[in-house]
Amino acid sequence: MSLSPLLDQLERALRCLPGVGQRTASRMALHLLDRDRDRGLHLAQALEAALTQIGTCEQCAVPSETALCRFCADSTRDAGLWCVVSSPADVLAMEHAGLYRGRYYCLQGTLSPLDGRGPEDIGLPRLYARVAEEQPSELIIALPSTVEGEATTFQIQVSLKETVRITRLAQGVPVGGDLGQLDATTLSHALLSRTEVPR
Amino acid sequence: MSLSPLLDQLERALRCLPGVGQRTASRMALHLLDRDRDRGLHLAQALEAALTQIGTCEQCAVPSETALCRFCADSTRDAGLWCVVSSPADVLAMEHAGLYRGRYYCLQGTLSPLDGRGPEDIGLPRLYARVAEEQPSELIIALPSTVEGEATTFQIQVSLKETVRITRLAQGVPVGGDLGQLDATTLSHALLSRTEVPR
Repeated sequence: MSLSPLLDQLERALRCLPGVGQRTASRMALHLLDRDRDRGLHLAQALEAALTQIGTCEQCAVPSETALCRFCADSTRDAGLWCVVSSPADVLAMEHAGLYRGRYYCLQGTLSPLDGRGPEDIGLPRLYARVAEEQPSELIIALPSTVEGEATTFQIQVSLKETVRITRLAQGVPVGGDLGQLDATTLSHALLSRTEVPR
Repeated sequence: MSLSPLLDQLERALRCLPGVGQRTASRMALHLLDRDRDRGLHLAQALEAALTQIGTCEQCAVPSETALCRFCADSTRDAGLWCVVSSPADVLAMEHAGLYRGRYYCLQGTLSPLDGRGPEDIGLPRLYARVAEEQPSELIIALPSTVEGEATTFQIQVSLKETVRITRLAQGVPVGGDLGQLDATTLSHALLSRTEVPR
């Protein structure tokens, strides 16, 4: 049941947004229609501009509307340090942390044979070619701590260990983490990778 | 901090949606970019179509892209019974309840002198003119149970009580409502409007 076919169509279209179900879509559509038509039209233009013009950086596959992304184009960043991530969101998370000043390499997800995602699908051959070409001094693997992430990390390690120094993010107790709430695997990792307390 | 200016612009534009803050907008933008460009572009078209083509019904001010909305155009509905609501969402709520088979009149909100919303701003003069013209048999007031809603109901009552029979939705205990959780005003209303139990 809806007020008009176009409104109905807008509600269905809004459900492509993650986390937006039928009721939220209906509320959003009526809000835009009733109070915010200008900003709604601006959203339509922004969507079209972003989705038609944003491609990927030719060096590191991070989303970008220019040939080089802002990280590869930034000459103040360390061009020899590459951080391998599995999604653009992880680039944002690393940038948000604020410490990292190198470049990125963005894979299209992680290896998952069950879902039919092999090395080509996530862009591993291209990473290997880029590493052979540019010879970075260090590759920091920052893939998710999941079975798929571990498998992808292993694959990269096997293929590139002769070519480049490979490191990965430390695993351990998160800051503010409560030992009692922590899973056994993380705690074991934290124990094995314990660090010396200076005297 | 964002990956590209266009993505940044899309994230800002997405925040016109109700309930969407910075993190949600960022997640939505990356989701569309990464996995759902086609549906994102479809959303852009649906937004533009709806926001440029939907006007209001010339009889009852319900949003519609045709001169008459689907309720006024439906000859099986009772044209002499009008339900006065303060927003298109309330039309949907009434329709969802499923019992009502009359027409609607949609005001643009409720009277609120503090926010500078007077009778003209919410379309009261037009309602009075339409009532004088069409002479419906009954006006059912279904405005929100707030101070502003009550003030608007009172204003309509004063202006139209000589012209048309005016009723309003019953106030009382909601179905499934727990008396212990109910506010005192609602409970007093329910007590004053108590109904006879058939013997």
